[in-house]
Amino acid sequence: MADTTVARPIDPEVIAQVAQVATAAKAASRKLAQLTRSAKDELLVAIADALVAAIPQIVAANAEDLARGRDKGLAPGLLDRLMLDEGRIAAIADAVRDVAGLPDPVGEVVRGSTLANGLQIRQVRVPMGVLGMIYEARPNVTVDAAALALKSGNAVVLRGGSAAGSSNRAIVDAMGAVLTAQGLDPAAVSLLDQGGHDDARALMTARGLVDLVIPRGGADLIATVVRESTVPVIETGTGVNHVYVDVGADLDEALAIVLNSKTHRTSVCNAAETMLVHAAVAAAFLPKVLAALGSAGVTVHSGPEVAPYAEAAGAAHAMAGEGDFDKEWYSLDLGVRIVPDLDAAMEHIARHGTMHTEVIVTRDRAAARRFQAEVDAAVVVVNASSRFTDGGEFGFGAEIGISTQKLHARGPMALPELTTTKWLVEGDGQVRV
Amino acid sequence: MADTTVARPIDPEVIAQVAQVATAAKAASRKLAQLTRSAKDELLVAIADALVAAIPQIVAANAEDLARGRDKGLAPGLLDRLMLDEGRIAAIADAVRDVAGLPDPVGEVVRGSTLANGLQIRQVRVPMGVLGMIYEARPNVTVDAAALALKSGNAVVLRGGSAAGSSNRAIVDAMGAVLTAQGLDPAAVSLLDQGGHDDARALMTARGLVDLVIPRGGADLIATVVRESTVPVIETGTGVNHVYVDVGADLDEALAIVLNSKTHRTSVCNAAETMLVHAAVAAAFLPKVLAALGSAGVTVHSGPEVAPYAEAAGAAHAMAGEGDFDKEWYSLDLGVRIVPDLDAAMEHIARHGTMHTEVIVTRDRAAARRFQAEVDAAVVVVNASSRFTDGGEFGFGAEIGISTQKLHARGPMALPELTTTKWLVEGDGQVRV
Repeated sequence: MADTTVARPIDPEVIAQVAQVATAAKAASRKLAQLTRSAKDELLVAIADALVAAIPQIVAANAEDLARGRDKGLAPGLLDRLMLDEGRIAAIADAVRDVAGLPDPVGEVVRGSTLANGLQIRQVRVPMGVLGMIYEARPNVTVDAAALALKSGNAVVLRGGSAAGSSNRAIVDAMGAVLTAQGLDPAAVSLLDQGGHDDARALMTARGLVDLVIPRGGADLIATVVRESTVPVIETGTGVNHVYVDVGADLDEALAIVLNSKTHRTSVCNAAETMLVHAAVAAAFLPKVLAALGSAGVTVHSGPEVAPYAEAAGAAHAMAGEGDFDKEWYSLDLGVRIVPDLDAAMEHIARHGTMHTEVIVTRDRAAARRFQAEVDAAVVVVNASSRFTDGGEFGFGAEIGISTQKLHARGPMALPELTTTKWLVEGDGQVRV
Repeated sequence: MADTTVARPIDPEVIAQVAQVATAAKAASRKLAQLTRSAKDELLVAIADALVAAIPQIVAANAEDLARGRDKGLAPGLLDRLMLDEGRIAAIADAVRDVAGLPDPVGEVVRGSTLANGLQIRQVRVPMGVLGMIYEARPNVTVDAAALALKSGNAVVLRGGSAAGSSNRAIVDAMGAVLTAQGLDPAAVSLLDQGGHDDARALMTARGLVDLVIPRGGADLIATVVRESTVPVIETGTGVNHVYVDVGADLDEALAIVLNSKTHRTSVCNAAETMLVHAAVAAAFLPKVLAALGSAGVTVHSGPEVAPYAEAAGAAHAMAGEGDFDKEWYSLDLGVRIVPDLDAAMEHIARHGTMHTEVIVTRDRAAARRFQAEVDAAVVVVNASSRFTDGGEFGFGAEIGISTQKLHARGPMALPELTTTKWLVEGDGQVRV
């Protein structure tokens, strides 16, 4: 609903700095938009080579970040996401080569026709222009985002988490040297690391210079972007996802799907956060699934109706507090609720879900069809793990994020989603009568 | 760039009223999303019939609006846009029947595949949910927007210009009676007319209730929406469009295209506002084109280099002031500039255009190709009038606006642009390994 908070003004010096960077990126984007596919692919391969050649410098810069992070008491999980070594950098470079191998979305004719008056119209894919990426302290995203931006003919302004500042600078310098060597403007891949928090805020209000902002991060970042951004935005990555075990479920299948959705990887947006179980199968299913979840180290959060099952199954249990069913745990925690029927399950999902990925386990065709038709989410799954919501799994070859909004892109976003279209109209003097 | 203006808070009572309307619309949208195409088409035909049956009431309500408008000294052009008579209402009803005849975008399978593990994935079109329309005092838009929303399975909250308040109320009441008669919730087509300006502001911040806001109107409205909206927006309708007459132009063709682009209809966003003429053809072209424009009643706005041509041709002339080349005249006024070459023309367009429609007149293939490749606009035209940027002309059958943004929709927007997509995934127990 309407937010009437008055935000602290952005530092005018930061606004000016970011405007300068974005203006340079915009100028660079004009040339990128005209590059052929082979020129872009050569550029990406050269960037991959340069990253491998720069391993000593990047690892040294990363060591600075890690030392600072340890001093600040960064959690082990975050330090691990931040860490780069020779193997990881080589893998990142390989991912850039993979992007070079993907089809070029630019120039694709989406549709077209010849009008009655002879006018020929064609809708073709063209680059957006300048992308703004706001993300956490994950240096691999710096490379992924740059590679996807360049392949789709866009310039990119990167604003990564400050904890990765030295690593990002070393990586962007290595990429900039390649751009320069190929006669391109290094401003095509720009890094903001001078203005702290205001860097991100200035980026999301650089209207007319930045064509699209993609925030990746937690609920706080998304809220700031929604409130403050004047540049068009694609929201990504908050997933409060549910697995609903229907009365018609194969319970062995359900167990495997719940376990995989929750425990396969917990720090990702396509993990499950809540299991909903139809009341008619609760007594048969909960003992087995809670025992399995308990063995996997999962803590169950629920109301009193589930607590005795958890206790009997030997699973850690906590009473669900207010807001627990709206939480993205990013950990071995799972909300559990017994629901009287399919409608109650869908009602819970409508209230607590984030329109990311919703799963039903059932052999009942009617229940599956209703769930897919009525649940409002980017991905609605029947009888499979929530973890499949992923650009790589869907066969897109690469992914810049998972959109949870309805405009422009929904679900896994890859290269085509980083483009817009343009109508080309060709006539020989037609006027309207 | 960053706007640090602090807006006046929205009246909390209006926020609550609008939230109530939007909540009801959201509930209504769930049922609309599941309607079959035939149910929707029957609904639209019944609405068309009801509008015709309500002609006496609508004309009477419109007479109140017109009387108020005359008292307030509304310009004749605006009064004409506001006026409804039997013929106009019949035409509006026919347009609703036309929408019933268009293909239903909902349910279209956009793409799909079977993954290596046997998972079947399909991306299908689904309704957005609730659309918010903010527009001028044009009662025909009330009907058009409702018809397009319903056909695409969406509910709509309408906020029309207050000068059309009585007409809009009569129209929405007539549509509401049909919705009720067909067992649907009349909240599916809701009108905001209680809260003045704050109605629009509350609508654009009703996040989570409204899925998409489409503002139609002048630069002020667009600026407010960009600054304040927290709901995703599609900007429409500001067109500072150029016709560039290249050195390679057929000058007779150029004359017809310039005349049609400027004078065919001046109150529309796809009219031309500026003519750019290559210096090498200025002496040959300007006398003819300015004479023709002068005869059509056009006033030429330019720098001193064009003034003598205008005088000699007998065209009204005014020296172009600051900002005149950024103005959407909506009238028989045209900016004129002589440019040294194609690059200067594209540079002028990049600085002053609004990414709507840009036209080049040339027989030079290389110039045409460069113009189409490098000009960043929704529609880039070679050798035809700017007036063809129109959903009807493009063969879409109907149009809710012309998007000048890059996200989601660009150029004329019709039914498919009022939908989003959903990925449906079907498995038989697949989990990630």
